[in-house]
Amino acid sequence: MRKLICLVALSLIAVSAVAQAPAAKPEQVIAYRQSLFKTIVWNFMPMGAMVKGSKPWDAAEFKRRSIAVAFAAVQLDEAFAQGSDKGAVTDALPAIWEQPDDFAAKLKAFQRTSNALRMAATTGDQEQIKAAFGEVRQTCGQCHESYRAE
Amino acid sequence: MRKLICLVALSLIAVSAVAQAPAAKPEQVIAYRQSLFKTIVWNFMPMGAMVKGSKPWDAAEFKRRSIAVAFAAVQLDEAFAQGSDKGAVTDALPAIWEQPDDFAAKLKAFQRTSNALRMAATTGDQEQIKAAFGEVRQTCGQCHESYRAE
Repeated sequence: MRKLICLVALSLIAVSAVAQAPAAKPEQVIAYRQSLFKTIVWNFMPMGAMVKGSKPWDAAEFKRRSIAVAFAAVQLDEAFAQGSDKGAVTDALPAIWEQPDDFAAKLKAFQRTSNALRMAATTGDQEQIKAAFGEVRQTCGQCHESYRAE
Repeated sequence: MRKLICLVALSLIAVSAVAQAPAAKPEQVIAYRQSLFKTIVWNFMPMGAMVKGSKPWDAAEFKRRSIAVAFAAVQLDEAFAQGSDKGAVTDALPAIWEQPDDFAAKLKAFQRTSNALRMAATTGDQEQIKAAFGEVRQTCGQCHESYRAE
């Protein structure tokens, strides 16, 4: 029995040692995080312009961009690793790691609304899309209010 | 007839004028471009570690990351806009805009191989995946050789 426990323990240690093949450094996490937000903004602005009417409606473009935002939103799950509050200049506030449950809820809300926008975009229904777009904007703001530096 | 041609011409001008609602500034294109490459690297490294055996094989993770790379590769289509050779520090070489056909072919090759990797990852066949991964690496190098600064 003790030998078996030993073997199991050793294999767990071995697996965890290998599994901890170099974790990303904080500055890398920060750079990745900022990359995702830049991708979000790059796609969000033209959608906003279409919703506002300052850019001609292009259903295919809207679809494409809403997919990009929804996907980046999901990729954000990896972008707030422990320790990435420092290591490089970041607008992410320490509160993210002090209030992880609330932050997680706000991030999930953004993922939910951006996915809903992606689905709305497939319908081509401009009113539905505009409403869904407004919902996304709200979840951006609700998270930024508490967790992003001014 | 002349009036009709006039109206068509005017509407084309109008559409193109509106369609040119503020194009992104060169520094924004550069920042977006760099964001995409950072996203590619973020996902590529753990896949490489799995292929090399320095990280335990995780088929679901590999699938997820290969999707991220394939998607970023397609998003690169927008990331080499005319004029984005300058405006901020960039590793993109002027040759990109001097040899656009060749560059486009190299970018397409990367899109093709990263998509093939994405599809291979769905099979779970490690040998197939490793081969497809090698193909992607080649297309990275073939483009960088001519179009990325040392």
